Amino acid sequence: MPFGNKSYKSAETLGYLNSQQALADFALLIRSLKHNLSSEASPVVVFGGSYGGMLAAWFRLKYPHIAIGALASSAPILQFDDITPWSSFYDAVSQDFKEASLNCYEVIKGSWAELEALSAQNEGLAELSRTFRACQDLHSLDSVWEWLWSAFVYTAMVNYPTEANFMMPLPAYPVQAMCKIIDGFPSGASKITRVFAAASLYYNYSRAEKCFKLEHGPDAHGLHGWNWQACTEMVMPMTCSEESMFPTSSFSYKEFAEDCMKTFGVKPRPHWITTEFGGKRIDLVLKRSGGNIIFSNGMQDPWSRGGVLKNISSSIIALVTEKGAHHVDFRSATKDDPEWLKELRRQEVEIIQGWIDQYYPDLKRTNKE
Amino acid sequence: MPFGNKSYKSAETLGYLNSQQALADFALLIRSLKHNLSSEASPVVVFGGSYGGMLAAWFRLKYPHIAIGALASSAPILQFDDITPWSSFYDAVSQDFKEASLNCYEVIKGSWAELEALSAQNEGLAELSRTFRACQDLHSLDSVWEWLWSAFVYTAMVNYPTEANFMMPLPAYPVQAMCKIIDGFPSGASKITRVFAAASLYYNYSRAEKCFKLEHGPDAHGLHGWNWQACTEMVMPMTCSEESMFPTSSFSYKEFAEDCMKTFGVKPRPHWITTEFGGKRIDLVLKRSGGNIIFSNGMQDPWSRGGVLKNISSSIIALVTEKGAHHVDFRSATKDDPEWLKELRRQEVEIIQGWIDQYYPDLKRTNKE
Repeated sequence: MPFGNKSYKSAETLGYLNSQQALADFALLIRSLKHNLSSEASPVVVFGGSYGGMLAAWFRLKYPHIAIGALASSAPILQFDDITPWSSFYDAVSQDFKEASLNCYEVIKGSWAELEALSAQNEGLAELSRTFRACQDLHSLDSVWEWLWSAFVYTAMVNYPTEANFMMPLPAYPVQAMCKIIDGFPSGASKITRVFAAASLYYNYSRAEKCFKLEHGPDAHGLHGWNWQACTEMVMPMTCSEESMFPTSSFSYKEFAEDCMKTFGVKPRPHWITTEFGGKRIDLVLKRSGGNIIFSNGMQDPWSRGGVLKNISSSIIALVTEKGAHHVDFRSATKDDPEWLKELRRQEVEIIQGWIDQYYPDLKRTNKE
Repeated sequence: MPFGNKSYKSAETLGYLNSQQALADFALLIRSLKHNLSSEASPVVVFGGSYGGMLAAWFRLKYPHIAIGALASSAPILQFDDITPWSSFYDAVSQDFKEASLNCYEVIKGSWAELEALSAQNEGLAELSRTFRACQDLHSLDSVWEWLWSAFVYTAMVNYPTEANFMMPLPAYPVQAMCKIIDGFPSGASKITRVFAAASLYYNYSRAEKCFKLEHGPDAHGLHGWNWQACTEMVMPMTCSEESMFPTSSFSYKEFAEDCMKTFGVKPRPHWITTEFGGKRIDLVLKRSGGNIIFSNGMQDPWSRGGVLKNISSSIIALVTEKGAHHVDFRSATKDDPEWLKELRRQEVEIIQGWIDQYYPDLKRTNKE
C-alpha cells in the first residue's frame, strides 16, 4: 500500500490506490531492479492471479517494453460494463453446486425463504442464534445471510482438487464435500440445519471453533481497499438471476454511486476500466496488436465467466480447465495434484519458455544492427 | 488546456498538463463522441505532428481498443534518455545549412565569436542595437544570441519546399534562401552583418517590421506550457557539439533540475517517458507487439533524428523523405507541392486505407462469433 497504514485515511491518500498507479509502480520497480542488478536486457514475465491477474494482463498490454509476456490467472478483465452478463458470477456459483448435486442446489436455494420466515417469528432471531452457534446474540437476519453467502461463494471460488488453505482450510473439492453434508441429512431435516452444517465446513473444517462470530466488526475480511477500488474504477455490476441459488437481486448504477458517496465520499467512474484497458470486442482488438499473454481459467471458479476463455491469436492464449478453481495453477504443487493440473502448469512453462526462446535471437539481431 | 486561462496558475493545476492525462482525455473524448454519434464500431485513426505525433503513436500503443491506427508525423519519441545522441538535434540543424552552402555554415559558426568580441567593446552593445535594428537598446548579448538561434533552428525545422507560414511567413526552402543571403554579400562584409540579414528573412520576410523586439517579454512564444512539460516529464537532453554551427554547450541533469526548481518549484523525472512509453530497443519491443503506426519524417527537420526512421514490422512503418521538414505531410496541399510530397501523402492514405480494409472483415468475423 502506497502510504502504509495511513493509506486508508482519506481520499487524498486512497486516490493513489488505483490500477494505473499500480502498473506505473511496477514499471518503475522493474526498471529500477534491472538497473541495480545490471540486467537491463533480461526478459521479464509478469504473473498475477485474480485482480493481480488483471494487472498482469494489463501490464503486458501497456508496458510491452518492460515485460515480454504475462501469465494472467483467473483474471476477470471482461467483468465490466455489459461485456459479460451481470448474472453470470452467481449463476456460475450455483452451477458448481448444481453439478455436485441437484438436491444440494435446491436446498440452498430454498433456505433463504425458510430463514426469512423463521426470523419473522417471535424469538426467531434467538432460535437462529442457537442454530448458527452465534458467539453473540444476532440483531438481524442480514449477518446470517452474509455468513452463508460468503461460505458458498468463497467455497465455489476455491473448489480446488486437493486439500488447501487459501481463504480457509478446506478439503479437496469442498463444494462436493458441502453437498455431501447437505444430502447426508435424514429426509426430515430442515433446510436451515443443512445449510448451517454445510457452511460450517467452510468456517470450521479444523473443528477449532466453539462458536461463530456472525456479526463481524468493520472490515473483518480486509476488503476496505478493494471496496475503495470498486467505488472508484473497478465497478463490476452483478445480479442474482432466478436461475441462481441466491435470492434474486438487481444492480443500479445510481444506487451503487449513492452507497459509494456515503462510504468514501466519491462517485464511481463506471466505464473507466474499459476506456483505459479495453475489453469490448477484445478479440477484434488484440488479434492484430499485443501478444504473449496466457489467460488461464478454471471453470469451477465463478470469476472464469468474466475471463478470456478463447485463444485470441497465436500468442494470446486461453488455457481452460474444467475442474480448475480460482488461480489453482498458482498454488504450490502437491503430491495429490491431478494430471490435468500438472499438464496445465507444464503448458504454461512451455509457452513462457517459447517467449524467452524467441526473445534472445530477437535481442541478438537488434544488437547487431 | 485543462483549466483554460487558469491552467498556468500553479503546479496544482499544471499537474494535469502531462502526456498520460492528454491520452486519457482523448480516450474519453473519442469514446464519448462514438457513443453520442451511435458509431461505436467505426474505426478511428489518430493523427498528430511533433509533440502531437508522439501522442498519436503513444495513443495507438496504449489504447489499441480505441484507435485502429496512428499517423505520427515528426514524432521524436526517441529523443529521450540516451537513445539518440544528445548533439544530434543541433548537428542536424547545422547539416541543413552546411548542405545548402559550406560558406554559409562557416559564417554562422564564426559569427558567435565576432558577436562576443564586439559586445565586450566599449559601446559594443549600442553598435549591436543599431546593427540588429533593436526597437529598444540592448542590455545583454543574450537576447541577440537567442534571436539568431531561434531564426536558424526554426528555419531548419520549417525548411518546406513551398512558401509557407507555420512559425513565420517564409519562402520555399528558407534555409537555402538564408544561405543565399549570407553568400551574396561582398567578400569584405562582417559575419555579424550577414547573420543579421539572414535572420531578418525569418523575422521580416513580409518586410513589415521597422525594428525588431529582440528582448521579449515573458513567454513571447507561448512556450510556458511546453517548458512545464520539459521540466516534469518531457526531458530531452540536448547539447551542441564541435561539429555544430552553434557555440558548444553541454547538458547536466543536475543543473536542469535546479533551473526547473527555480522556475516551477518542481523536479523533473528524467527517465519517466521511457518508463511509461518505452523507446529503448524500440524495434525489439514492437516487432512482436503493437501495430498500425506510420512514423513519417523529413530529414530536413532536425527532430527527425529522434524519430523512428526504419520499418519495425509489416504494419509499423517509417516513411522518410530526404527533403521533408517538420510534419510537412500535414500542411495543406498546394499547387507547388513537389512530386515526392504528393507521393508521401499518397502512401499514407494507401496504408491507412489498408488498415480500414482489414478492420471491417475482422469486425464482421467478430460479430458472427
